[in-house]
Amino acid sequence: MFTLLKEEGLARRGTFETVHGTIQTPVFMNVGTLGAIKGAVSTLDLKDIGCQVELSNTYHLHVRPGDKVIKECGGLHKFMNWDRPILTDSGGFQVFSLAGLRKIREEGVYFNSHVDGRKIFMGPEESMQIQSNLASTIAMAFDECVALPAEYNYAKESHKRTIRWLKRCKDEMNRLNSLPDTINKHQMLFGINQGATFDDLRIENMKEIAELDLDGYAIGGLAVGETTEEMYHILDVVLPFAPKNKPRYLMGVGTPQNILEAVDRGIDFFDCVMPSRNARHCNIFTEKGYMSLKNERYITDMSPIDPDCDCPTCRNYSRAYLRHLFKANEMLAMRLCVIHNLYFYNKLMENIRAAIDGGYYKEFKKEKLEIYNSRV
Amino acid sequence: MFTLLKEEGLARRGTFETVHGTIQTPVFMNVGTLGAIKGAVSTLDLKDIGCQVELSNTYHLHVRPGDKVIKECGGLHKFMNWDRPILTDSGGFQVFSLAGLRKIREEGVYFNSHVDGRKIFMGPEESMQIQSNLASTIAMAFDECVALPAEYNYAKESHKRTIRWLKRCKDEMNRLNSLPDTINKHQMLFGINQGATFDDLRIENMKEIAELDLDGYAIGGLAVGETTEEMYHILDVVLPFAPKNKPRYLMGVGTPQNILEAVDRGIDFFDCVMPSRNARHCNIFTEKGYMSLKNERYITDMSPIDPDCDCPTCRNYSRAYLRHLFKANEMLAMRLCVIHNLYFYNKLMENIRAAIDGGYYKEFKKEKLEIYNSRV
Repeated sequence: MFTLLKEEGLARRGTFETVHGTIQTPVFMNVGTLGAIKGAVSTLDLKDIGCQVELSNTYHLHVRPGDKVIKECGGLHKFMNWDRPILTDSGGFQVFSLAGLRKIREEGVYFNSHVDGRKIFMGPEESMQIQSNLASTIAMAFDECVALPAEYNYAKESHKRTIRWLKRCKDEMNRLNSLPDTINKHQMLFGINQGATFDDLRIENMKEIAELDLDGYAIGGLAVGETTEEMYHILDVVLPFAPKNKPRYLMGVGTPQNILEAVDRGIDFFDCVMPSRNARHCNIFTEKGYMSLKNERYITDMSPIDPDCDCPTCRNYSRAYLRHLFKANEMLAMRLCVIHNLYFYNKLMENIRAAIDGGYYKEFKKEKLEIYNSRV
Repeated sequence: MFTLLKEEGLARRGTFETVHGTIQTPVFMNVGTLGAIKGAVSTLDLKDIGCQVELSNTYHLHVRPGDKVIKECGGLHKFMNWDRPILTDSGGFQVFSLAGLRKIREEGVYFNSHVDGRKIFMGPEESMQIQSNLASTIAMAFDECVALPAEYNYAKESHKRTIRWLKRCKDEMNRLNSLPDTINKHQMLFGINQGATFDDLRIENMKEIAELDLDGYAIGGLAVGETTEEMYHILDVVLPFAPKNKPRYLMGVGTPQNILEAVDRGIDFFDCVMPSRNARHCNIFTEKGYMSLKNERYITDMSPIDPDCDCPTCRNYSRAYLRHLFKANEMLAMRLCVIHNLYFYNKLMENIRAAIDGGYYKEFKKEKLEIYNSRV
């Protein structure tokens, strides 16, 4: 299903076939936690800005409106009117980042809902069942995301449990995909590499999960407080042990700079809330550098955010207008800036793919890093 | 500039020529207070939903970002990227509804900004200057909007002052339109009829302002707490004295029922925040009746708000999805519902025009009133 088209150094250009269409990699997935992109951006807008894959959160949708509601509505694709691939995370990360008190047991995790405090249990089988109800294109395995810095013995115990959970995920998905009333019987499973910041645990973990012949492999438990150098180091250490013929997904990463570096180390899939979150705070990515639209000097600046950008916002609205909307707390400010920032990320990936196709990724990366480290 | 195409009883079908294009009347103006429609709706969206005239608020734009900023940006049309007609109110209503302490003098009104408390003075000349800086298509005269119920002597004194202010507005606009650096030298002026709920004052006022040969005449000071019957009564009493060959604008009104009744009494222009405000609270207008999308029974209802509606929301999203978005506090809920409700209002006006054109307005009104008084 994953076809490697071209390589330059460790950077990879590929395609990933799914029942909801072919994904060109490297790809950035646009995050719509609750089945909607924050900032009043709809699935119609996602098509306008070149989004290939939408990512939704299993835990959030389980709590509201409930995965059984979504199944009754025909699955998440129908529910949100999106016909391209959807990846759902497993809920594992949210259980650890959002839930209050939690108890981790061999069977799974007991915790309280962040919305109404009610008790929830989620284990590998429950996560797979929820994701099967959502009928996403790609489901993520249920894992434990260990807080960093982690204690070695705990990280070791945890990654081994995560592997046992992964096997249960695989079995449960096989069972679910064979049931007559399952909406997406071709749902795919990505495993998640864990092991905190310990090289030996990361490698041991990746070697074991590689043997399970999953549809893809994610690097989890990063971008949670470690330094950028530690993150790149883990990639350098662990990716040589990831199956070459399967896509690799760096979860929750990151800045344009992070993406350029991670692609150079062999990552194919990305997701991050940064473009939409930054946009909602008036912080804008451009091909000329980073920009804060709140700056006083834009007050009568009738040029677009980036004159060379073809996004709907830059084609129609000025810095002066956007700045005014932010100052006046108009929701439209967020919408227009989220659209721009997501377009920027999707376009960056398109340019990355063209650079690998053209065999000039090294120069491309160097040039872009210089720009992205500057401010407009 | 106003051409009466057809009449049925007192209902009027017309066209109003402006430098920014021809307005088909009766018309509903879509309110974008600060140069943006609340609910993350842009001027691109307004074109999609059949908006003919956008309405912005002089007082709000004077405070943020400042009318001089907007003039420097080339006027409100360029600022918000909208090439069709814009009507700006005069600030009069906001001075009375939003400002804290205020002193009304012959020269104008002294009051404090609702944003930062700073002292502002606005009189007829200032209002015209601000609106000239905004370069709207139609400017409204600066008036005093008297709180209801009003004391007779005060209402009399006030409406006479409003007439003196109107004459100053007309003189100031003539002066501004003749200046070389005025953006819209063809800006038009609508006068505003006042007189609280006193028939004789309303009539006296209308007779006097009719003599000024303005571009249009508004009925102000209504929809501020009086009963619907009182409002209709004022229209019945005053409209016979409004010039027949000029458009009539009922400010800040109203429900679909109000619009149907007011058209039947000879009103041509409307504006109201109701469609967008209701949408933001999940209250939806449909051609089957009024609907609250928060209702539990829509939880898995995959039909659109109204299967017969051609708005972008109804063509793409379901009741179940919209309800979920509201429950999850997603901004997208507001956007999609504001788009639907504004489309509903614009479409209602289109149908009203077709009914007058076709000579069946009486039946149309009767049929629609029954529907709009019901709930889905």
